[in-house]
Amino acid sequence: MNFADRAQSCIARVEATLERALPRPNPGHSSLPQAMRHAVLNGGKRMRPLLAFAAAEALELPLEAADAPAAAVELVHCYSLVHDDLPAMDDDALRRGQPTVHVAFDEATAILAGDALLTLAFGVLADAGCPASVCAVLARAAGADGMVGGQALDLAFESTRPTPEALADMFGKKTGALIVAAVDMPAALEHSVDDPARRALRDYAEAIGLAFQIVDDLLDLEVATEQLGKPAGSDLEHDKATWPAVFGVDAARREAQRQRERAAAALALLPGDTDGLAWLAQRIVERRS
Amino acid sequence: MNFADRAQSCIARVEATLERALPRPNPGHSSLPQAMRHAVLNGGKRMRPLLAFAAAEALELPLEAADAPAAAVELVHCYSLVHDDLPAMDDDALRRGQPTVHVAFDEATAILAGDALLTLAFGVLADAGCPASVCAVLARAAGADGMVGGQALDLAFESTRPTPEALADMFGKKTGALIVAAVDMPAALEHSVDDPARRALRDYAEAIGLAFQIVDDLLDLEVATEQLGKPAGSDLEHDKATWPAVFGVDAARREAQRQRERAAAALALLPGDTDGLAWLAQRIVERRS
Repeated sequence: MNFADRAQSCIARVEATLERALPRPNPGHSSLPQAMRHAVLNGGKRMRPLLAFAAAEALELPLEAADAPAAAVELVHCYSLVHDDLPAMDDDALRRGQPTVHVAFDEATAILAGDALLTLAFGVLADAGCPASVCAVLARAAGADGMVGGQALDLAFESTRPTPEALADMFGKKTGALIVAAVDMPAALEHSVDDPARRALRDYAEAIGLAFQIVDDLLDLEVATEQLGKPAGSDLEHDKATWPAVFGVDAARREAQRQRERAAAALALLPGDTDGLAWLAQRIVERRS
Repeated sequence: MNFADRAQSCIARVEATLERALPRPNPGHSSLPQAMRHAVLNGGKRMRPLLAFAAAEALELPLEAADAPAAAVELVHCYSLVHDDLPAMDDDALRRGQPTVHVAFDEATAILAGDALLTLAFGVLADAGCPASVCAVLARAAGADGMVGGQALDLAFESTRPTPEALADMFGKKTGALIVAAVDMPAALEHSVDDPARRALRDYAEAIGLAFQIVDDLLDLEVATEQLGKPAGSDLEHDKATWPAVFGVDAARREAQRQRERAAAALALLPGDTDGLAWLAQRIVERRS
């Protein structure tokens, strides 16, 4: 069975973990549980959980080992979208064709739902008994030196045009850090931070993280609103720093392809089955939405 | 040396841990580190860290054991204030006489700074090598069934008048859960969840948590803006559900005293030095700001 088939069962695994971890709606109480579920159980592509499962395979770990890391990284991703969509941030009303959380509920509920999802990410790791090393990987990737730091840089770039190096640094934090964490959390269960296989996995993930962001920016330019489920060109509208805006569309496409080749080279250093990681790298660069 | 004197050195301990954990300001980059520092290094009373250190003493643990839990619980408290103060939430412009984070910086930076502080709380626990049991205590207390859940209930009560039971439940989550976590994290280092000493500590903390919230509501009614450093009567202005509003001022005062006695009774069941916990219970009920 190739990974394209196994991916569906991996998605079912992580969605079962998420369903169990999310609070139940409680009639007559606050709408917080519904808002959290709206943000998470929305037909997302679950790319980060798939990376966690594929990393476990590449390290010859059982899939079970990646259950909590996969759910945790998806919860962090989902919380970041809820807060990103807020009026004070990107002010987006649609995501995947559905109203964003602050539109479907209200702004205060969206702030709290994001906070609760971020908290739950660490709760899922803790309840699964994950060691401190795994929790540390997620905290570093999600925090001020990772994803949130990248978002803050992205905002800062709205007023000052970044250098190409600064743009790559911002991308590495804003999108790359969490993608690296998706593969590095399972690795942290059994390997020291300097283990060659763990380093190769991080290298693979940095490469596809950068490719992913470039493709995302290209799609934002190219794809119409209907196909994408969110307003097309919304980055340009906000005068956001993007790879195609700084380097041009053709150079951006070449860079995405170059990063995919870098990712493929890293896979040769891994002991287990790398079909999943190879498949995900291809999907990320060739996706149309 | 009584705890009033030791408290100063405990405050110095946690502020040193916080200073080391917070990101450094980086000129030419985003203002995220400054915003995080503004939110945390603001002369706060550090009540929750003091509870963590006093709990360690009461369990005969070294103070060092409480360093990471003390810093983590304070980071969660500080992030919650940043998000609470946002325009979509309480819309407060002042805290401890200083501009709130979204006023001193901007709304997007305040959202991100809160997110980064919450993430850092778990990062501090992980970097100190705290076991999953400690991380689980904080995640449960801070999340949808704890503090954030209580904040969501508080918002829901603006449109529907709560029953006294619902009000007590909301207080227990919104303020109480994190106070309980402050003492329960050090306890989780060495004691199972059903250990009698650990249960007594939680009972103590539930009692002073409720007393703390009642006193907070009373102060909001009684104290002028100058003394408190935030607009007096702001809860009433927002038509918030408070203990004195539902039960009356005299009944609220009696309930605070009753909870203090409940806390004192719980302390008799602890093996170590409970001077700190007794001193903190007294300070909380008798405070004037």
